[in-house]
Amino acid sequence: MATEARSLSVIITPEQLLRHWQGHRHLTRRMIEAFPEDKLFSFSIGGMRPFADLAREFIRMAVPSLRGFVTGDWSADDRSVEVKTKADLLRLWDESTEEINKLWAKFPVHRFQEVDKAFGQWEGPVYALFWYIIDNEIHHRGQGYVYLRALEIEPPAFYDRP
Amino acid sequence: MATEARSLSVIITPEQLLRHWQGHRHLTRRMIEAFPEDKLFSFSIGGMRPFADLAREFIRMAVPSLRGFVTGDWSADDRSVEVKTKADLLRLWDESTEEINKLWAKFPVHRFQEVDKAFGQWEGPVYALFWYIIDNEIHHRGQGYVYLRALEIEPPAFYDRP
Repeated sequence: MATEARSLSVIITPEQLLRHWQGHRHLTRRMIEAFPEDKLFSFSIGGMRPFADLAREFIRMAVPSLRGFVTGDWSADDRSVEVKTKADLLRLWDESTEEINKLWAKFPVHRFQEVDKAFGQWEGPVYALFWYIIDNEIHHRGQGYVYLRALEIEPPAFYDRP
Repeated sequence: MATEARSLSVIITPEQLLRHWQGHRHLTRRMIEAFPEDKLFSFSIGGMRPFADLAREFIRMAVPSLRGFVTGDWSADDRSVEVKTKADLLRLWDESTEEINKLWAKFPVHRFQEVDKAFGQWEGPVYALFWYIIDNEIHHRGQGYVYLRALEIEPPAFYDRP
């Protein structure tokens, strides 16, 4: 593949970046599974949001941003507000995982260095807007680790990402 | 510069990646500053490490890993164990910031796609070993946000990175 041919002159290839992102998303999915159903939607420390609300945010950002990068359509996707149970959340998570894989295949590498305005509000180069999605998920998931530890539940290992 | 010339065929350039990393490190520095001195070294939730110990880990990983990628010298740097005060920690942080900038200038882009074994223990492509450093810092810093909120201290905004 073209990406492999030029692999020695790039930091990371699109295939590697997708795997990296989906690896993080898979870990977040295991965090959702690790929460008891009621705590997922209610447990909080210091007035911060319950983990289900953080996961809803990750879902609202992932596919809609990627769709924006690929198609220019920056419409919001508020399906996550209808989520009432852990099973609903995991189902929507898995749908996002599939949609990401499909959209990624249409994401041309030159887009990463172009400037865009995410949802008509946040302007920057696409690579920076993209990394914000991953970094925001890692950041808030770290918050979830404290919630689980405070609940005396062993979280999945941070380094254990496929 | 060469990197700018090929900018439309790469996801992220070395200059952009350094800025991205140092932006995250600057936010972590502001988190260290936000902690009251005693809480920095003692406050914990759910048996997790105090934020100073997390910051020591970030310091132990950053320059020694980068030195390993660039020079092949994987020796550890345990200066952070001598840190006793917030001022010590910030001083060592700033020293690392400068050392990172110097080492980065010698970091050839082709290294990112080569396989290495960090500290003789963790084997993988350099890009993956490198991102582990950033991701680990974001992950544990997210833990620090919960500590600050639990202490009723407003943390610096996650998105506010230079």
